[in-house]
Amino acid sequence: MAFASAAAVHRKVGQLGEHVLRMTTRAGAGHPSSAMGIAHLAVRLMYEQMRYDPASPWHPSADRLVLSEGHAVPIIYAAYADLGGTVGKSASDARPLTVSDLDSLRARSSPLDGHPNPAEGFPFFDAATGSLGQGLSVAAGLALGARLDGSPRRVYCLVGDGESREGQIWEAADFIAEQRLTGVIALISANGQGQAGPVSVQQSAERLAAKLAAFGWNVVTIDGHDPDAIASALEFVGQHKQPLAIVARTVKGWGVETFQGANWHGKPLSEAELPAALASLRKQTHDAHPGTEQVGRPPAPIAGGNSRRGDPREVSWPSFRDALESAGMGGLLKKGLIGTRRGYGAALKVAGDLLPQVVVLDGDVSNSTISEVFARAHPERFFECKIAEQNMVSVGVGLSAAGFVPFVNSFAKFIARAYDQVEMAAISRANLKLVGSHSGVTPCSDGPSQMGLLDVAYFRSLTTVRGDDRVSPIGWLFHPADALAAYKLTQLMLSTHGLCYMRTHRPEVPLLYKDDATFELGGFTVLSPGDDLAIVTAGYMVHACRQAIELLARQNVRAALIDAYCLPIDGERLADALARSGGRALVVEDNFGGGLGAAVAEVAARRGTGQVHALHCQRMPKSTLTPEDELDYVGLSPGHVADHAMSMLRAAR
Amino acid sequence: MAFASAAAVHRKVGQLGEHVLRMTTRAGAGHPSSAMGIAHLAVRLMYEQMRYDPASPWHPSADRLVLSEGHAVPIIYAAYADLGGTVGKSASDARPLTVSDLDSLRARSSPLDGHPNPAEGFPFFDAATGSLGQGLSVAAGLALGARLDGSPRRVYCLVGDGESREGQIWEAADFIAEQRLTGVIALISANGQGQAGPVSVQQSAERLAAKLAAFGWNVVTIDGHDPDAIASALEFVGQHKQPLAIVARTVKGWGVETFQGANWHGKPLSEAELPAALASLRKQTHDAHPGTEQVGRPPAPIAGGNSRRGDPREVSWPSFRDALESAGMGGLLKKGLIGTRRGYGAALKVAGDLLPQVVVLDGDVSNSTISEVFARAHPERFFECKIAEQNMVSVGVGLSAAGFVPFVNSFAKFIARAYDQVEMAAISRANLKLVGSHSGVTPCSDGPSQMGLLDVAYFRSLTTVRGDDRVSPIGWLFHPADALAAYKLTQLMLSTHGLCYMRTHRPEVPLLYKDDATFELGGFTVLSPGDDLAIVTAGYMVHACRQAIELLARQNVRAALIDAYCLPIDGERLADALARSGGRALVVEDNFGGGLGAAVAEVAARRGTGQVHALHCQRMPKSTLTPEDELDYVGLSPGHVADHAMSMLRAAR
Repeated sequence: MAFASAAAVHRKVGQLGEHVLRMTTRAGAGHPSSAMGIAHLAVRLMYEQMRYDPASPWHPSADRLVLSEGHAVPIIYAAYADLGGTVGKSASDARPLTVSDLDSLRARSSPLDGHPNPAEGFPFFDAATGSLGQGLSVAAGLALGARLDGSPRRVYCLVGDGESREGQIWEAADFIAEQRLTGVIALISANGQGQAGPVSVQQSAERLAAKLAAFGWNVVTIDGHDPDAIASALEFVGQHKQPLAIVARTVKGWGVETFQGANWHGKPLSEAELPAALASLRKQTHDAHPGTEQVGRPPAPIAGGNSRRGDPREVSWPSFRDALESAGMGGLLKKGLIGTRRGYGAALKVAGDLLPQVVVLDGDVSNSTISEVFARAHPERFFECKIAEQNMVSVGVGLSAAGFVPFVNSFAKFIARAYDQVEMAAISRANLKLVGSHSGVTPCSDGPSQMGLLDVAYFRSLTTVRGDDRVSPIGWLFHPADALAAYKLTQLMLSTHGLCYMRTHRPEVPLLYKDDATFELGGFTVLSPGDDLAIVTAGYMVHACRQAIELLARQNVRAALIDAYCLPIDGERLADALARSGGRALVVEDNFGGGLGAAVAEVAARRGTGQVHALHCQRMPKSTLTPEDELDYVGLSPGHVADHAMSMLRAAR
Repeated sequence: MAFASAAAVHRKVGQLGEHVLRMTTRAGAGHPSSAMGIAHLAVRLMYEQMRYDPASPWHPSADRLVLSEGHAVPIIYAAYADLGGTVGKSASDARPLTVSDLDSLRARSSPLDGHPNPAEGFPFFDAATGSLGQGLSVAAGLALGARLDGSPRRVYCLVGDGESREGQIWEAADFIAEQRLTGVIALISANGQGQAGPVSVQQSAERLAAKLAAFGWNVVTIDGHDPDAIASALEFVGQHKQPLAIVARTVKGWGVETFQGANWHGKPLSEAELPAALASLRKQTHDAHPGTEQVGRPPAPIAGGNSRRGDPREVSWPSFRDALESAGMGGLLKKGLIGTRRGYGAALKVAGDLLPQVVVLDGDVSNSTISEVFARAHPERFFECKIAEQNMVSVGVGLSAAGFVPFVNSFAKFIARAYDQVEMAAISRANLKLVGSHSGVTPCSDGPSQMGLLDVAYFRSLTTVRGDDRVSPIGWLFHPADALAAYKLTQLMLSTHGLCYMRTHRPEVPLLYKDDATFELGGFTVLSPGDDLAIVTAGYMVHACRQAIELLARQNVRAALIDAYCLPIDGERLADALARSGGRALVVEDNFGGGLGAAVAEVAARRGTGQVHALHCQRMPKSTLTPEDELDYVGLSPGHVADHAMSMLRAAR
């Protein structure tokens, strides 16, 4: 690498810093002081160290920058505009960013969102950041993808000292060290200031360096505003077997006197303050470091790597029977009892056979989620993320940005550990597949700490919002009742771009569907007709409700059974189906409310016709010895369901 | 401390181990191998080191044990039964646990849940564990409470090596070191085995010790099955200014040959395997260490500390005006624009004046959440948790168990970081108050990474389940529209035991309520009547909807405006109110669906009368320069609301 003189870097910082001050003042919002703290690091990285072409942000092997402390983004925007980098949501609407575009910071029509977000048209970034502590995991996912592709890509990640208090940073530090992902270079900006006050001594430069070393990293500590020191540190890149962390002592609001003294956080200068601030910055940069040398342009990306991808909609899937055989679970068919997680495991294994971009992550429970079947067949594409779900989900976001289709697995309950990361994945429009096993109350004797009880309400909320096509939802929820449904819904997840969540359960259950069953987005299945009322349910509860229907039949009640395996549900079709069942629906789910019951109630209430009762867990579960006992405890036994149906019918008469 | 001989400890381990093996086999579930890994540590702690009376689990200054790796709980149950410890949900149903009770492990009627849970009648524990990595934070909260009370209580926390991959463990390590909470003693059991395979080298005993040292802890590494080594390590307790961590090398399934070799995780022995396992254990314990000496009983708790508490229902609150004055915000009244977060901040400050048990935690955003007002007035009860929300919430759970009322603050978006911890708080029945500021789309120019968009759906789900009285919900959601409502709803949260979430917003808004306004659980306010339809909304959207109502009035439509400030909502009363507005409701909320709209739709659909349309964010937000522009972008401007109302009315005609 040829690095320009320190003076040239200072002058570039001066030039970009002016943009930062002006654009945030113009927007009336933003974090100019945080931006100035990383200005010298950004210049060295974006103009000299990173091997990329600003005009080709979608280049498959170009180096990447993840700005974990997303609020510092104005300096990145300024540099990218100065370099004429490409913006746009896709190649078809691509155009170079100009310096005058910077004035549109945070505006409705601008690709320059308040925090990094590739989805709004800033493809220099790979994932949305701004909720802190997630970037290092995203960087790990990108680097993992590069390794799988054999690409020389390196991933630089800028992390703040304050945000390094987030545990996820240390989950990522463990993961990167364990996987020896030397393609990730972490740069920690230690400016000593948080939002509400100084950062803790626990996040001092010294302590951060000591921690990173204890986590197995190679650590260099430098003055983050000394261009020569930055250059020297960057020369370590690629030299060691351990991942490299550069701890940079920085100054929040570097170069601008107004920002010094009291902690200046998250607000722009007023128009009145601007001139003095610009003068002060100029003094620190152009005046203190006169000269004419310019920093150069970034070196071209190194070509290399083989990014094989298949089209999920064009592969030919084996029959369910063959898939089970292929996954070593053929014997289960004879027994006739197969849990949904096993159907999913078989699908995962076959998906790995068919599509090179399928990768699987698990959090030390692959023998429970049954992702272990994939791990055995495709060990090079299986990543054991250990008990650290936040990092796992964000690594998945990085892998998605690298063109892979990550299936992220844990208990439904433990995926909740990463709901903020899931939301950032949705904001990033990541192509992420989440699968939560042991959903609902079926883990029974383990007690509520192992049960997924809020997952349906949470993910259903994501399904209520439209994605960029203004038609598809931003997220999908799938909830198979048997192993065949799980097998086919996994295929559907794979061919549906975007965020998908599937909920599997623990118990072994009989097959309800035949090989030729079809499952579609927004679909549901009327498993048995009935004109008195419809019982609408999904997943494990379909089995309990089959028993309820038998109990009702003995009382001469004809109840339909509807398997609502997908949310959002097609409201028109559902309303028609309910009309054929007396316009009455009893919705049953083994989780807390606000899930399927709310979805069906909204369909009916929107029309103002029909009656919907939502029956869900009536109380907090506790340990019981069997799933049947648990259902009884929480008020969801077949008897409870049948009784509730009878009371609806009695009231209607 | 007088420690018994190593042989006596081994024999006690043998005796308790027999119970562990038998009870898990009988239950057909459980983690006997994990339990045996901490057997010697448990004996030294529970019989000798901890200063407590097993008959008095609610003693205010007794030492406590937090079992962070909750699945290892059978050994604790065995020891507690051997000691005749008290079980029961309260003093009124207290009774001693017997050895024969152990056979009820995980049964429906048993206090011995599959994972630790005080709420089911095991008061030896303070909080539910089982979702990993949370216990050390709970221990920190307990120790913080003890410090506030001036109590000599010490808190021992058993952590697994596998779970120490969770970032939250390191958030807790930072917090404890920073606060110098030497009352917490961490014992890390490093058995080298996870569920699906061996733990990572990143979680080896050596590396864990190095990490803890880098985090500022005093670390001792020992053989966790050597009673003398354990005793020596425990002698360090209270000797240092830094918190103490004991890294114990342990063997999963210690003493039982069947458990060795392949990793034996999370399953009991069969009845057939039991005899050989018992014999093997006996050989390792009683046979290898013959003798008659017995380990003793735990030393009595050290009295001390002053636990002053007030009754929130009996204090007399100042007027809103006086509260604002007292909080240094009196000037706002003249301006006439006051954000809900400011009303909350004033309430918090006054609550601190009135009630010594009110404590406040914030995650480096106290100048945004306005908890800074409390921090200034009551610095000794304000805890800056920095940017580590998971630890913050679990510290709150510990403080709640210590008899305090913690208010936990962050942006609504960042509280999502700790939703799994929130759920564990609900399982623990913690008296926790969570307040999320910057809710909905009001952070506008900051973009979606800073917006609370799924919080209403998530917390609403918690409100659908009944608590132990089978009447009250397990959680409440409050959503004030103005600062006075925020002031009074904070009072309501304080007098309502259990989990409460309040959602505040960023913009300054006019006051809608007068001083004499009342707010009640399940309540709502009809701000203006109207017989054509009702607009039901809450929080910031009340203000946007007031404009919509004016737009409608110009078209001669009389729309009622209902402020639904609490969930769950009183369905009977709401149905009556809707009936007075033509049976039509348009529900408006500036978040994703599944929240208030779902709640109102469920009320209507349950009766099968009336029509409800749920209007929420129609798309993923992006940065815009003003809240008005953001509402327009996501389809929620006053114009959108009015148009939607008109289309409902047109369709009805």
